[in-house]
Amino acid sequence: AFEVAWDAAAAEKGGWSSFMAKEVSEQPDAVANTLRGRLSDGQVVIPELEEFGDEVLAGIRRITIVACGTAAYAGMVSKYALEKWTGVPVEVELSHEFRYRDPVISGDLLVISISQSGETMDTLMAVKYAREAGAKVVSICNTQGATIPRESDAVVYTHAGPEVAVASTKAFVAQVTALYLFGLHLARVRGSLSTAELAEQVRELSAIPAKLETVLQTSEMIAQLAHWMSGTRSVLFLGRHVGFPIAMEGALKLKELAYIHAEGFAAGELKHGPIALIEPGQPVFVIVPSPRGSATLHPKVVSNIQEIRARGARVIAIAEQGDAAVLPFADEVVRIPLAAPLFEPLLAVVPLQLFAMELAIAKGLDVDQPRNLAKSVTVE
Amino acid sequence: AFEVAWDAAAAEKGGWSSFMAKEVSEQPDAVANTLRGRLSDGQVVIPELEEFGDEVLAGIRRITIVACGTAAYAGMVSKYALEKWTGVPVEVELSHEFRYRDPVISGDLLVISISQSGETMDTLMAVKYAREAGAKVVSICNTQGATIPRESDAVVYTHAGPEVAVASTKAFVAQVTALYLFGLHLARVRGSLSTAELAEQVRELSAIPAKLETVLQTSEMIAQLAHWMSGTRSVLFLGRHVGFPIAMEGALKLKELAYIHAEGFAAGELKHGPIALIEPGQPVFVIVPSPRGSATLHPKVVSNIQEIRARGARVIAIAEQGDAAVLPFADEVVRIPLAAPLFEPLLAVVPLQLFAMELAIAKGLDVDQPRNLAKSVTVE
Repeated sequence: AFEVAWDAAAAEKGGWSSFMAKEVSEQPDAVANTLRGRLSDGQVVIPELEEFGDEVLAGIRRITIVACGTAAYAGMVSKYALEKWTGVPVEVELSHEFRYRDPVISGDLLVISISQSGETMDTLMAVKYAREAGAKVVSICNTQGATIPRESDAVVYTHAGPEVAVASTKAFVAQVTALYLFGLHLARVRGSLSTAELAEQVRELSAIPAKLETVLQTSEMIAQLAHWMSGTRSVLFLGRHVGFPIAMEGALKLKELAYIHAEGFAAGELKHGPIALIEPGQPVFVIVPSPRGSATLHPKVVSNIQEIRARGARVIAIAEQGDAAVLPFADEVVRIPLAAPLFEPLLAVVPLQLFAMELAIAKGLDVDQPRNLAKSVTVE
Repeated sequence: AFEVAWDAAAAEKGGWSSFMAKEVSEQPDAVANTLRGRLSDGQVVIPELEEFGDEVLAGIRRITIVACGTAAYAGMVSKYALEKWTGVPVEVELSHEFRYRDPVISGDLLVISISQSGETMDTLMAVKYAREAGAKVVSICNTQGATIPRESDAVVYTHAGPEVAVASTKAFVAQVTALYLFGLHLARVRGSLSTAELAEQVRELSAIPAKLETVLQTSEMIAQLAHWMSGTRSVLFLGRHVGFPIAMEGALKLKELAYIHAEGFAAGELKHGPIALIEPGQPVFVIVPSPRGSATLHPKVVSNIQEIRARGARVIAIAEQGDAAVLPFADEVVRIPLAAPLFEPLLAVVPLQLFAMELAIAKGLDVDQPRNLAKSVTVE
């Protein structure tokens, strides 16, 4: 009986060593399937939002995103795009914090909830609370027929397929994709982007699955790096702009899977405290913004790298192909394909997922079932 | 010459072993002096805001607080009170992140900047950017005649006195005090709190200096605790509601001074990832909300304590006097005087400041001049 069960599990993993390895590799499909049926002629039309009503979307004055864990980082990534594309101010709040303070809720507030399972209790409570107080709620969810969608005014499903590993990976990229689709739908309804601008963003989004295939090719290099670093006791992650939530997500993956201290910082905060932590040999991942898209931010991040390197940090840079400025200062460079700045996070997160998984494997840990954690947190 | 300089420094420290020890002890005065001249008949009137105009304050629809480091945590603490008292949604952003994305800025946005020195370059740039884009700016600052106040529409000075130690302590409690004063001024102008409600908050605020004297009496116990823990490699901090930013501030102090990995979490996030880090012996500070003021949150935090204790964490609870529910589960309990929930952070932060200072001392480090850090970050 034991062997049969094992064989069944192995079969479900489709030849991969773990569900996580399988799910990381499925990310191009997770994005492609989430885009399917929602793009037409360079425009985004989400059929599920039609009955929600364009006049409601046009009347929104504020957006609050509620989520927990990795889903909250998907929300933080999308804040930048949603504000830029729609002109509506967006705040991201942890569901359990939103629920238990006195948030300002009015009829012109749209709450967006994010939960892979659609059963996250803290997020469900936040959704119920927001609706009772008069807000409209759109939910991003990966599981058909779950509780949170039923309690929402509308739902935009991600089509990542079932996610079994406790640490979320393909659900994350699908969530960012769904939030970007929502943002472009909203921008079209509100007229805040021109047809040409909308088409440009749709082109970028459509190109992501193929670019994800490319970035997955870094897996062997990352496995080697993790193998060398298996004795590491802590890792820091730095990012700016959309790279900031990616830094925090990279740190969370490492905590969840490898049980080591890992923290993500906004690179601009370095001098305001965290740089005191840098001592010789401290590994630091730096998510480097594109020098093309972020003419101001790129040199600032390169300068951050020089500062921590001068104090002995071991720097692993996640940088776009062709960015030569990081070479003199980085110990390792992981390359990601070229993308517009708002789309870089969908690529930059992958090496960090791979690193956490490979470091856990190098330490002999179970990557699918990390200690103390459940896949869906269905209690408060 | 060397000895004379040392004597001069010793004299400036007024008998304290460090500027930080002196400044931590000056916190009751920092709050009292910041309140002085701004309370009258149970109301808050900030003379500096008079020329700013009540009609401007009445027309505000959103508030964005910009700051870095400890000042950003002061902003995060005050968000809860400002929203509750004024009904205006408040967002807190790191200055360097605000400046370099495309924030939504309109004439009904009030930006509040916080900087002890008034020279923090990232915050100055955010202030200039916000004003150029049409927002009004009020600045919280501790230094008369600094650059940021000159670039702002109005300034609410903190009167903490000069802060010399690099790690900010008395400036933090003075900043929260000034933000609360601003919130009560705004609530009066907007009519969002009744006269009785305003008077109640003013009573709570006026009682803080004496309560700070009481909480400073925990210093010997904390020094002993830090002495026992001098070999500690990492410390976690948990809080909810206003205790969440205090958890992050406690972690920042420890990073800055003792150079160990320390991270503050919203207690509700535990099950969404960070609980994987808990292994036998891991020290965790938990900021416990009052059972009187937070009937819902108190049992949730006690339940978090039980969860991490079951996994072997060593729990140090910061809890109000008389809260017996934490006793069975905490290894140590640090008591703070009773205060209404929104005012607890002004007290709960003190044991965390003391702990970081004493742990640094126990490790033989310089608490006034931590490595790699400058008092004011006057470059971007």
